[in-house]
Amino acid sequence: MPNYCLTVQYDGTEYAGFQIQPGQSTIQGELEQALFTLAREPIRIAAAGRTDAGVHSEGQVISFRTTTLTVPIDRLSTAMNTLLPQDIRVIMSSFVPEDFHARYSALHKTYRYQIYHGTFPNVFLRRYALWERERLNWDAVTECAQLFIGTHDFAAFAASGSSVKSTIRTMKNVVVDAESEIKTIRFTADGFLYNMVRNLVGTLLDVGRGKLDIGNVREIMDSKDRRLAGATAPPYGLFLERVEYP
Amino acid sequence: MPNYCLTVQYDGTEYAGFQIQPGQSTIQGELEQALFTLAREPIRIAAAGRTDAGVHSEGQVISFRTTTLTVPIDRLSTAMNTLLPQDIRVIMSSFVPEDFHARYSALHKTYRYQIYHGTFPNVFLRRYALWERERLNWDAVTECAQLFIGTHDFAAFAASGSSVKSTIRTMKNVVVDAESEIKTIRFTADGFLYNMVRNLVGTLLDVGRGKLDIGNVREIMDSKDRRLAGATAPPYGLFLERVEYP
Repeated sequence: MPNYCLTVQYDGTEYAGFQIQPGQSTIQGELEQALFTLAREPIRIAAAGRTDAGVHSEGQVISFRTTTLTVPIDRLSTAMNTLLPQDIRVIMSSFVPEDFHARYSALHKTYRYQIYHGTFPNVFLRRYALWERERLNWDAVTECAQLFIGTHDFAAFAASGSSVKSTIRTMKNVVVDAESEIKTIRFTADGFLYNMVRNLVGTLLDVGRGKLDIGNVREIMDSKDRRLAGATAPPYGLFLERVEYP
Repeated sequence: MPNYCLTVQYDGTEYAGFQIQPGQSTIQGELEQALFTLAREPIRIAAAGRTDAGVHSEGQVISFRTTTLTVPIDRLSTAMNTLLPQDIRVIMSSFVPEDFHARYSALHKTYRYQIYHGTFPNVFLRRYALWERERLNWDAVTECAQLFIGTHDFAAFAASGSSVKSTIRTMKNVVVDAESEIKTIRFTADGFLYNMVRNLVGTLLDVGRGKLDIGNVREIMDSKDRRLAGATAPPYGLFLERVEYP
């Protein structure tokens, strides 16, 4: 059966997250409805990352199998965009090998968190960056971020109540860029626990504010206790930037 | 009577423009309502530029006189922002000399128009830049833009039916920047006719698309006939960037 792979951008502001939920506007719901219109059969899609309510995507990847889609592959993105709301765009469509799965085949995902520093909130960034009134110590943030690189048990940064088998993940890289007006923290890992990026960011922000030091963060990590880490950073600063496959 | 000057940023997407209109959400309406709450008397504000529905501001300037405002000037921006919706922010407040008027005292205003080039629209720019699918000839746009610099009769670029006394304006500068992902055209003039920037942009875009050449634009300008110029570019790509005073 033909296996499809689509790259999808979205502004998550108006959605209750990626994952389909009855009675709620979701990214998955919109995508599956557009596919249903084109294929005239229900199609269940798999996604690389199930982003939360308010979280954005520049490079979400979805995959699905169907035999009833007759739109040529080079016109599929445009056909989908004609049916999708303006805040969701398919930017690439291709056929992939039979065994490709948007989630299970992913090697690495990169999430970017955006922070805006200024005396007043910026109206144009209110949906896309966390506003920080006070100047943060970005050198301390950068230093502390290196702690997360490598294979670690990230239990202290996972939302409580999640039922994953293992809380061990391998963080390939954490890159802090505080040079521009919009400061960014990029996390690249083989996988992320529920709310993990937002909890890591919340903790790093506390380091930038001087409320925690690198020793505290090492202790939090070792404790595996969610209650010790910083507050969960709000969703609207978070972007699923890129997914890498073999 | 104390004379106040405020610099205001706003995302114009949700508003029927700056100017107050009964039964409509307007920037002026929101600002005057916030001032009424603080001063407990109706205050009429003057603005440097009366931006249209959907047009944004990074540096709109307003002025007003009142004796009943008791908030200290260094807290006025914050007090206003507490009352204003999230898409309108006061970023500076100061006292100005008695004869200052946000509109009549302005020497120059700078408007910026944003254009995004890509195969598909960018979801994060859908409210802030015009999407152009085809690559434009930016060298031709840049060359043609120089035509507008100086003192000219801009009648061909004024919305028909406007009743201004003179359609002559002095354009100090037009700067085209096509280096970044978001292409920009900046217009600095002593004043602008109704829809003038959007009509100039519509004409420049036709030059970029190869539909008009520089000779045609010179003829349009000389004709003073609105019907010959390019289509009015949509409002959401336009920003009031800066207002200069003596």
